[in-house]
Amino acid sequence: MLGKYLENVRKNHPLIHNITNYVTANDCANILLACGASPIMADSAEETAEITEKCAGLAINLGTLRKDVIPSMLAAGKKSNELMHPVLLDPVGAGASEFRTKTALLLLRELSFRVIRGNASEINTLAAGTGSTRGVDADQTDIVTASNIDSTIAKAKGLARMTGAVVVITGEIDLVVNKSRAYSIRNGHPMMGKVTGSGCMLSSLITAFISANPDSIFEAVVAAVCTMGLCGEVAAGRMQGQDGNASYRNYMIDAVYNIVPEELELGARYSTEIGEA
Amino acid sequence: MLGKYLENVRKNHPLIHNITNYVTANDCANILLACGASPIMADSAEETAEITEKCAGLAINLGTLRKDVIPSMLAAGKKSNELMHPVLLDPVGAGASEFRTKTALLLLRELSFRVIRGNASEINTLAAGTGSTRGVDADQTDIVTASNIDSTIAKAKGLARMTGAVVVITGEIDLVVNKSRAYSIRNGHPMMGKVTGSGCMLSSLITAFISANPDSIFEAVVAAVCTMGLCGEVAAGRMQGQDGNASYRNYMIDAVYNIVPEELELGARYSTEIGEA
Amino acid sequence: MLGKYLENVRKNHPLIHNITNYVTANDCANILLACGASPIMADSAEETAEITEKCAGLAINLGTLRKDVIPSMLAAGKKSNELMHPVLLDPVGAGASEFRTKTALLLLRELSFRVIRGNASEINTLAAGTGSTRGVDADQTDIVTASNIDSTIAKAKGLARMTGAVVVITGEIDLVVNKSRAYSIRNGHPMMGKVTGSGCMLSSLITAFISANPDSIFEAVVAAVCTMGLCGEVAAGRMQGQDGNASYRNYMIDAVYNIVPEELELGARYSTEIGEA
Repeated sequence: MLGKYLENVRKNHPLIHNITNYVTANDCANILLACGASPIMADSAEETAEITEKCAGLAINLGTLRKDVIPSMLAAGKKSNELMHPVLLDPVGAGASEFRTKTALLLLRELSFRVIRGNASEINTLAAGTGSTRGVDADQTDIVTASNIDSTIAKAKGLARMTGAVVVITGEIDLVVNKSRAYSIRNGHPMMGKVTGSGCMLSSLITAFISANPDSIFEAVVAAVCTMGLCGEVAAGRMQGQDGNASYRNYMIDAVYNIVPEELELGARYSTEIGEA
Repeated sequence: MLGKYLENVRKNHPLIHNITNYVTANDCANILLACGASPIMADSAEETAEITEKCAGLAINLGTLRKDVIPSMLAAGKKSNELMHPVLLDPVGAGASEFRTKTALLLLRELSFRVIRGNASEINTLAAGTGSTRGVDADQTDIVTASNIDSTIAKAKGLARMTGAVVVITGEIDLVVNKSRAYSIRNGHPMMGKVTGSGCMLSSLITAFISANPDSIFEAVVAAVCTMGLCGEVAAGRMQGQDGNASYRNYMIDAVYNIVPEELELGARYSTEIGEA
Repeated sequence: MLGKYLENVRKNHPLIHNITNYVTANDCANILLACGASPIMADSAEETAEITEKCAGLAINLGTLRKDVIPSMLAAGKKSNELMHPVLLDPVGAGASEFRTKTALLLLRELSFRVIRGNASEINTLAAGTGSTRGVDADQTDIVTASNIDSTIAKAKGLARMTGAVVVITGEIDLVVNKSRAYSIRNGHPMMGKVTGSGCMLSSLITAFISANPDSIFEAVVAAVCTMGLCGEVAAGRMQGQDGNASYRNYMIDAVYNIVPEELELGARYSTEIGEA
């Protein structure tokens, strides 16, 4: 069932506008190319609205946030909303500084997002309207495990209800939640946490999937999260000898380049969660 | 014949000043080191003129353009012009936004460029003084093929006449054109389009070649374009099993690191085009 | 003896705040993850003090310096000093422009650094309070060799006395110097000079080591420099066939990911230098 969402990315070649950070921009661009989409990175207020018009979707990422880029995000987001292009928010480091938390909350107020993707600490911060995050990684206590999955789903549903967005929490178990549904995804590999920008790359990938599948946002998100996790597994299977996290990064992007719909169908491990009603 | 231009890069180790984007800066730096040159990236108005003085050449790249970097570009460009250092313009996304188009045209008015390198849409935009580009890739209708090569050469010659620069259009077929000559280059591989920054890397590489061969700009550009294309072919020949575009990126830079003048001589596939008179 | 400093990085997982350049930020983040630390890159004045509070150490790097980031550096540095977090300065390109030289000297006046790491030209510039550097590489005449090692140590000691910092000069021979001690380190490989950001990566790595070993700064620096050099050797041993500097970059980070304390013990080649008294 999920294969067709990948197929649509390969068929439609969506051009994805990224307003993102300088740490992982290169990897985000290459993973977009790997999945069949095209990237454009542009963050000047002079052009973001115009650039977004030519694109199929927009990913806003708060890593290495600068004050002068906030108007660029708002301009691009408003234009995308107007044109009904799907917009994703990756609130990198929300909770780690008031600046990032407030900016994320401002964006949530001003713009309409189809997807919000973060780690558990970032999503908790947005759900609570405040929070504390250790750097750009999830706090140890926030990581989604079998024991806290229900309460995490409850928080994600709260944020989904507030925003109308599909909320994605990535971690040991990934969750994809909207106001009425919750899926857990058990693809992925611990090595993904040893590569900078795994989360950013997934956010760009999700944006490609939803832009190519605008009528099936929830399913397209599940497909993108499974694709990334599965490619993390494929990359891990390729590790040998002296390989480390640098090789792993390349293997992960390579795997996205090579994955075909049938492999996604076979390898995706997702299931419905009942969670808190 | 082309080998000596590569040899001069290896011999002279030109220091290349790059005012460029944050998406592909790392790859541009590594490809400059690969070919035997040295990179410096600096884009603050406080220092660009002074930095450029210590360099042999300057590459100005409009990817992720910010308004406050335009004075930096002008300052570095004017100083380079004054010192007769070769300057290259890579008008990334000209045509995709008015901001980029206008900035590119401003730079063309204010500075003297030895080389302008872009895809067909970007060059068409500059040749026309206006235009429409889909993101940072060439529009499908603009891609240089056997059927539109003559009209594309005519446009490139127009821009070459207007600016005095050698104009390079990269695509399926690459073109190197000045007001009186036109070469087509048939090196390269489709995988190059699957790596972010192939164009940016080529622009940095060309700048190294012309800086090390200031008396043979046209030939040095042809040599650089052939080198990049040939290295794209070598990289493709190295692909196996689970390799994808991330591995390909590394292979391409590796190939530039390893190529020797004799291989360039043997592998370069260029020919004179008559084009439109 | 050095193994335990690496072990402490792996045990304490220090979160390292990097205010750095966009060229090598991705590699710095991945090498931090490779050694067992975690990276956060943040350079907005709105948040750098707050971000640094949640971190164990701070690396300030002047590559691609922008004027508006100087207050961010000062705010983060002052907060780190207040909290007794170790702070490292990497004065990339000091001497190459007045802007970088003056900014480095300003930071030295305003902040207390535990470590200053640069190439010989950059350190000479800071020691003299002025200088000339060719781009971001050391001038040929400045490179540390057997014949100039004594005078270089004298300069480094001068800077160490003035600032209270451990001074690290990297080159063919690496030097780690404080006001009373001087070590030379003979690990490393010439290929490291063919990868952009080898120096930046080492600076981030050193920051991780000193943050995890706050009571043994000098030894932790020696351990970090040996680790990086040794990993450069391991990476060189892995090169084959068509590998070049792009593969080498990955191998170097991979080697940091895989190195265990015993290998560091066995492979580290350091010795006390008497230098100038």
